[in-house]
Amino acid sequence: MLENHELHIRVHYHEVDGQGRVHNSQYLNYFERGRVEMLRASGFSYRDLEASGLMLVVRSLEIQFHLPAVFDDELILTTALGYCHGARIQHRYRLVRCLSEDSQLLVTGTSEIGCIDHAGKVKRLPSFLQLNLRDD
Amino acid sequence: MLENHELHIRVHYHEVDGQGRVHNSQYLNYFERGRVEMLRASGFSYRDLEASGLMLVVRSLEIQFHLPAVFDDELILTTALGYCHGARIQHRYRLVRCLSEDSQLLVTGTSEIGCIDHAGKVKRLPSFLQLNLRDD
Amino acid sequence: MLENHELHIRVHYHEVDGQGRVHNSQYLNYFERGRVEMLRASGFSYRDLEASGLMLVVRSLEIQFHLPAVFDDELILTTALGYCHGARIQHRYRLVRCLSEDSQLLVTGTSEIGCIDHAGKVKRLPSFLQLNLRDD
Amino acid sequence: MLENHELHIRVHYHEVDGQGRVHNSQYLNYFERGRVEMLRASGFSYRDLEASGLMLVVRSLEIQFHLPAVFDDELILTTALGYCHGARIQHRYRLVRCLSEDSQLLVTGTSEIGCIDHAGKVKRLPSFLQLNLRDD
Repeated sequence: MLENHELHIRVHYHEVDGQGRVHNSQYLNYFERGRVEMLRASGFSYRDLEASGLMLVVRSLEIQFHLPAVFDDELILTTALGYCHGARIQHRYRLVRCLSEDSQLLVTGTSEIGCIDHAGKVKRLPSFLQLNLRDD
Repeated sequence: MLENHELHIRVHYHEVDGQGRVHNSQYLNYFERGRVEMLRASGFSYRDLEASGLMLVVRSLEIQFHLPAVFDDELILTTALGYCHGARIQHRYRLVRCLSEDSQLLVTGTSEIGCIDHAGKVKRLPSFLQLNLRDD
Repeated sequence: MLENHELHIRVHYHEVDGQGRVHNSQYLNYFERGRVEMLRASGFSYRDLEASGLMLVVRSLEIQFHLPAVFDDELILTTALGYCHGARIQHRYRLVRCLSEDSQLLVTGTSEIGCIDHAGKVKRLPSFLQLNLRDD
Repeated sequence: MLENHELHIRVHYHEVDGQGRVHNSQYLNYFERGRVEMLRASGFSYRDLEASGLMLVVRSLEIQFHLPAVFDDELILTTALGYCHGARIQHRYRLVRCLSEDSQLLVTGTSEIGCIDHAGKVKRLPSFLQLNLRDD
């Protein structure tokens, strides 16, 4: 598993609310895309994981909104792996807006994901998700 | 089955886009709520229908946008049953904004819904969905 | 301002994801509805507040997912006011599923909201939002 | 203006509903992305258009659902310009799933877009939107 991943995100029109800013709930969708694409870049498919009978579910999440993203912005989301213990994975997120000279920090966050089966029972993460993780 | 149903809808903040208007995709969610609540008012639960192994899926839809709804508007959606043949149901929708004196027509639409099983195979509608329908 | 508010929420079909559970991002929309309806129950309109040139924006948020909500569930969201200092309001959220005998705790959370003008400049909360608040 | 445009779309997790299929309302967001990206590929920015005081709004839309898209599918949306009269543009949409050997037609649709100002008044399309269009 990679420990860091960068995802380029273009803000779509329907993601913006009446304030002309990306709606707060939308950033959780961006975080989810970051997790899925980090997994894919590591050689694994979240679709295959669910097909195998396991699901990853968000257990907790915290998020700080520093500056708003607006329609058509080009953003870079950095997703980083934190700890990985048994059935839980922590990710840290950092979303910036790309500008020609520099970049602006828009949103930061952290989530804890759990692994369960379709009956909702907690399951150990599959071994490929534990490879190379700092599981002290 | 009822042939007409009225649903009161309050427009939520996250349903509005950067133009300060309810986003066009959101009206399809309102139509879906209309279908679910018409079914409930007729004594049936769409959750139970899916639990029985059947699903209703949208096959086609057309929608006309006359005037925009905005945040906090109080709307009334009238859902009416059209035809009902074998595996298909037609609904017609009429969404108005409630004003003290009169009401304004915002959106109209029509959809055709099909009945399938979890494998995607077309299935006849269950008999309770056909009761009292004009199935000529 | 009220210090507590209860909102009844019915889970809609489009709020549920491929796991058959309410998607994690959707709970932020429920929290937003809780804030808007607590304001309305206190005699104030968030629509009027924005029309006056002020906006309330989420500055930070943390959320814990205990149990999943599913389609058609009847939920009760309790929104409680925490602190209120100058330009910031804290809310605490508690979402339960109503069952015939008892209720199940699904989601808890906390958010900090800030008050800004349309240029994004931080503004003191209007006085009616500060009335009766514990602003020590 | 280009008369045809192809957009590659990856289906995200939050776009799928409890049936494991992309929710019907989500396809309207894909169509919107198709219009925005066709404009960009033609050398124009919808963000700039709105900044100039004009807005494009959907006036009507019809859509046919042939086969469902599911999570992680790679789709190609072809957006084609139809007529363009005064204040109105017609687009036609064709969404297919890319498979190794061939492709499957999932969704087709047509929309009519209108041009208005921020007061909601109908306005002629700006001349760059009319260049090279078949406006007979």
